[in-house]
Amino acid sequence: RSQQANSPARVSSLLLGRTFSTESNPIVATLFPGDGIGPEIAESVKQVFRAADVPIEWEEHYVGKEIDPRTQSFLTWESLESVRRNKVGLKGPMATPIGKGHRSLNLTLRKELNLYANVRPCYSLPGYKTRYDDVDLVTIRENTEGEYSGLEHQVVRGVVESIKIITRQASLRVAEYAFHYATAHGRARVSAIHKANIMQKTDGLFLKCCREVAEKYPEITYEEVVIDNCCMMLVKNPALFDVLVMPNLYGDIISDLCAGLIGGLGLTPSCNIGEGGIALAEAVHGSAPDIAGKNMANPTALLLSAVTMLRHLELHDKADRIQEAILKTIAEGKYRTGDLGGTSTTTEFTKAICDQL
Amino acid sequence: RSQQANSPARVSSLLLGRTFSTESNPIVATLFPGDGIGPEIAESVKQVFRAADVPIEWEEHYVGKEIDPRTQSFLTWESLESVRRNKVGLKGPMATPIGKGHRSLNLTLRKELNLYANVRPCYSLPGYKTRYDDVDLVTIRENTEGEYSGLEHQVVRGVVESIKIITRQASLRVAEYAFHYATAHGRARVSAIHKANIMQKTDGLFLKCCREVAEKYPEITYEEVVIDNCCMMLVKNPALFDVLVMPNLYGDIISDLCAGLIGGLGLTPSCNIGEGGIALAEAVHGSAPDIAGKNMANPTALLLSAVTMLRHLELHDKADRIQEAILKTIAEGKYRTGDLGGTSTTTEFTKAICDQL
Ligand SMILES: CC(C)[C@H](C(=O)O)[C@@H](O)C(=O)O
Ligand SMILES: CC(C)[C@H](C(=O)O)[C@@H](O)C(=O)O
Repeated sequence: RSQQANSPARVSSLLLGRTFSTESNPIVATLFPGDGIGPEIAESVKQVFRAADVPIEWEEHYVGKEIDPRTQSFLTWESLESVRRNKVGLKGPMATPIGKGHRSLNLTLRKELNLYANVRPCYSLPGYKTRYDDVDLVTIRENTEGEYSGLEHQVVRGVVESIKIITRQASLRVAEYAFHYATAHGRARVSAIHKANIMQKTDGLFLKCCREVAEKYPEITYEEVVIDNCCMMLVKNPALFDVLVMPNLYGDIISDLCAGLIGGLGLTPSCNIGEGGIALAEAVHGSAPDIAGKNMANPTALLLSAVTMLRHLELHDKADRIQEAILKTIAEGKYRTGDLGGTSTTTEFTKAICDQL
Repeated sequence: RSQQANSPARVSSLLLGRTFSTESNPIVATLFPGDGIGPEIAESVKQVFRAADVPIEWEEHYVGKEIDPRTQSFLTWESLESVRRNKVGLKGPMATPIGKGHRSLNLTLRKELNLYANVRPCYSLPGYKTRYDDVDLVTIRENTEGEYSGLEHQVVRGVVESIKIITRQASLRVAEYAFHYATAHGRARVSAIHKANIMQKTDGLFLKCCREVAEKYPEITYEEVVIDNCCMMLVKNPALFDVLVMPNLYGDIISDLCAGLIGGLGLTPSCNIGEGGIALAEAVHGSAPDIAGKNMANPTALLLSAVTMLRHLELHDKADRIQEAILKTIAEGKYRTGDLGGTSTTTEFTKAICDQL
């Protein structure tokens, strides 16, 4: 089995505390096809995995039709149990149903599975032209606290407050992950993104934790970049960055900014790392109800997310082959979906990838 | 006197409550040359204004050598009084001296002069190549509250909080300014940038205020864009945006991101609008101590900021002529400072602009 430096699996399995073995075939993984275009792009993943003989058996779960009181959301308790049991999963887009009295599906997943880090490798796709051809970075977002505390109140009429929480525990945890990740992937630099010149206590604590962890990794260059300056540098010269680690909201902003550099959320893989070694890969784009069921959706983000899942499972050979087939298909340009300027259907694009395999 | 739709002056004088008249010559304006390269680029403004016969007399103020107890910072009370009296000013970069017991110079100015809106017109400079040639937008940042409240504390060891404050008063004020500005400049759309899906109370109140104001401007299209999506769209297609209005931290981030699109803070004008009709234009780049005194600095940001000051004074003819001379000099490319890939000194670049006039 290949043991590339450049693979997420090593760090994942470190955190996982156990190693998945291809000998105990098949591995069971949870699949949330999701809403809208979700089922179509999930089908694409299933086909590509089949074509590459990936030893995975999917356990499919759909978003429920009613609020499950145990999750306070439309996500069923069973589906969460499935991820907890399997430790790995793949998730398509989920549209949170409108109305009150329940939590957003994405936020529920993060909370219930304690998905503390959102990891997004972001690289220019060969042959797919944007204004940038030199992006190769990874954003690692703290995913549980910060501005997402949910603590808000009205002080007096016309004066409201939101509370941002930063804890030592969550900051250390995500910083540890970032440095593990950088090491395992042969990446040279970790940049902590902050606004500690203004939020000295909260972002200050975040930086303090990053510094503590950085000391344990003398071979990795550590730097701190103020968020406004970071965004300016990212749009001017993204090649300056390698691994970026940051509190929740900055991660939300910067990960989407970076996705924009390479063409958008339809091309960006994402993986959530949870306590206890859970990895839930996901396409972070929307469910695109307008084109749902029309065989028009681009499955690239979900496919590349599935690749990060394979790396987590240490199935590097499969991951490499599939990733190569996806990138080659896009680069050759003969089969592209409409969002990439092509005219192929989801099925044709998927078939082209399978043919590469 | 020209009365272009496309000039900031009309709205400024609306807020100012009085009209500056070129007949009451000369107008007195406060000038903070600032630190580092500040004096050199301020000299450039003085020369260009002289070459264009601008009827302005500068009242120069430098950052003090000691903390002034009345301002709790190195800014002297006299210098603030000067801006209060003159109502208009221009500010070079100021390096806040390191040490404890005093406030940052920029934050002190904002607080003491109640500079509630930071306005940054951001447009691609003809002939100066970046990855973008289609930027033409204005960011309007709420400048007094939000994440900059300074309210932070430790809850227990390892758990810290920052408090973000949004008030109806400050949100309405900046929203009013944004719509006034859009109207006065013939701009068609105002986008309010937010994260109200997460911070429902704070960003929710901000949006509510924007909506209230928007109703009074039926001829301006109003839209709301979530900040992560906004940043992605800005890097993919900045031409989608026109006027953006937002709370403090988002404004900090997005205004720098936009500056990055057109080449950086060295090229971006900025103007702060305060209660009582104060306008303090400023170069937002740093004081660049490494090149200070070497006749290498690029005065463009301060010059273009000075142009926004002229528009505020309704000196449109002068503003137009000077802006044209600056842009033409950069576009022709013969005289450019090092940061723009040229070899000209500050003096040569300035002289080239004066020669255009
Ligand atoms: C939908 C929203 C709550 C979510 C977030 O802000 O985290 C989204 O932007 C994301 O990045 O997953
Ligand atoms: C220096 C810093 C306090 C300041 C801010 O965050 O407001 C700066 O980034 C700015 O935009 O003027």
